[in-house]
Amino acid sequence: MFQFREEFECYLAKYLDKLPTVPLLKEAMEYSVLDGGKRIRPLLTFAGGQLSGANNQTLLPIAAAIEMIHCYSLVHDDLPAMDDDDFRRGKPSNHKAYDEATAILVGDALLTEAFALLAHNHNFTAETKVELLKILSTASGALGMIKGQFLDMHAEQKPVTLEELEEIHNNKTGALIKASIMMGYIAGPNQSQESLQSLSTFAQKVGLMFQIQDDILDATSSSEILGKSAGKDAEQEKATYVNLLGIETAQEYMQKLNTEALALLTPFQTHADPLKALTLYVIERQN
Amino acid sequence: MFQFREEFECYLAKYLDKLPTVPLLKEAMEYSVLDGGKRIRPLLTFAGGQLSGANNQTLLPIAAAIEMIHCYSLVHDDLPAMDDDDFRRGKPSNHKAYDEATAILVGDALLTEAFALLAHNHNFTAETKVELLKILSTASGALGMIKGQFLDMHAEQKPVTLEELEEIHNNKTGALIKASIMMGYIAGPNQSQESLQSLSTFAQKVGLMFQIQDDILDATSSSEILGKSAGKDAEQEKATYVNLLGIETAQEYMQKLNTEALALLTPFQTHADPLKALTLYVIERQN
Repeated sequence: MFQFREEFECYLAKYLDKLPTVPLLKEAMEYSVLDGGKRIRPLLTFAGGQLSGANNQTLLPIAAAIEMIHCYSLVHDDLPAMDDDDFRRGKPSNHKAYDEATAILVGDALLTEAFALLAHNHNFTAETKVELLKILSTASGALGMIKGQFLDMHAEQKPVTLEELEEIHNNKTGALIKASIMMGYIAGPNQSQESLQSLSTFAQKVGLMFQIQDDILDATSSSEILGKSAGKDAEQEKATYVNLLGIETAQEYMQKLNTEALALLTPFQTHADPLKALTLYVIERQN
Repeated sequence: MFQFREEFECYLAKYLDKLPTVPLLKEAMEYSVLDGGKRIRPLLTFAGGQLSGANNQTLLPIAAAIEMIHCYSLVHDDLPAMDDDDFRRGKPSNHKAYDEATAILVGDALLTEAFALLAHNHNFTAETKVELLKILSTASGALGMIKGQFLDMHAEQKPVTLEELEEIHNNKTGALIKASIMMGYIAGPNQSQESLQSLSTFAQKVGLMFQIQDDILDATSSSEILGKSAGKDAEQEKATYVNLLGIETAQEYMQKLNTEALALLTPFQTHADPLKALTLYVIERQN
């Protein structure tokens, strides 16, 4: 997994470096992509690929496309009109380092180039490319991540139920996390319909666990450790698991999801070891 | 062509209506898509398709994807941090009718759904889908439209040469106009490499002509006729053909491009009639 992470950083840096575009635009794109994020989604793609025997070289472009989508969403999310965050991954957010217009265009460019990267890649058959593009566009669009962002935006300052909160997060964070695992899985040769189904359920649970831990960290950690503004959820009266359940019950809920999730991995035997390790990381991470 | 335009409006409205997303997000997307734009790009796709004998039903999803990309670019372009335009297609721009956060998400959603629409469509083989997605993502991303936007943004208030201006517009407007024609063409069965090449040169000239007429209208027409703020180019000291060449020389240059463009259509005989009619419309339009 460490080796994949290194190969991934190298692949992504090279891909952006070779983009024949305006140097300043490229620099601003690189600023928000090559900046030491945790790379959880790319690693989930790697781990998903291990379940179906995917080749690591094949997983790199998939992981890069997903991370570019994730980074675009952070850049747009941080804009003053959205979450208004000046601080991301331990440094000024894109619109603070450059300006708002640049941040809007950087987000648009990363989003578009994620699809371009997959469409132009030579590792896949046309059929696999189309499947990958279907999953990625559905997960990140108006039926997935953007839907979640929109619901989240409108959930501020009004009470939501646990069910509504889960709908927000299944879309806002969960959809792309699920896509990361599924896209890795369908890139390998040893697929089955049954495994695809249970992996999909597993992935949904991981997405929720990820968000619960995010909420817990926002409430309990510091801006220095998180590399982004802590305590913003309470300040903005955001709907979070912590605000809705309290920290202790949120932690119990996460443990319950974890047990259910791990059980779904049993049929994959040792092929699921990287995915198990990542699941543990998701709930134990400190930033 | 009129029939295609009607079918197109119907297809696009139905597609958006069926999107299973949050009603208010969908409404805001529809606000900026189903609003009586000129639909030049969809019509160019239709006209491009006539050259290779493409089926109209096959051209509809292509035209819809391109128009969604065009509309997203207008929504983001109008934002206060970008061109700061309160008025578009004769009504308040998206961020005025809703708010900035909504307009950012509407743009992101339209961009993503354009790729989703093509990836999920059943009219094409996987190979054709990939070709369409390659052209669309390249034309609209950091190597095309966004590059043009970025260059344009940085060209304000400093002198540019005619060559630099053409680079801006070949990317900002030209890339997607060219893609509209080319994507229509590759959807039909009667393609040849030679025709593809001359059509590409033709499309580039049409893109420039479109922009020159845009600049002329901005300088000579009224906000009422244009349905957007007129006279903004001079006000913002923007680099335009009119500012650089004067109206008369700009018109002469457009006529020269027109003659060269029409000559490239000769081999297509009467199949090029819709494309000729549209080219005439591009340079004679009053809004």
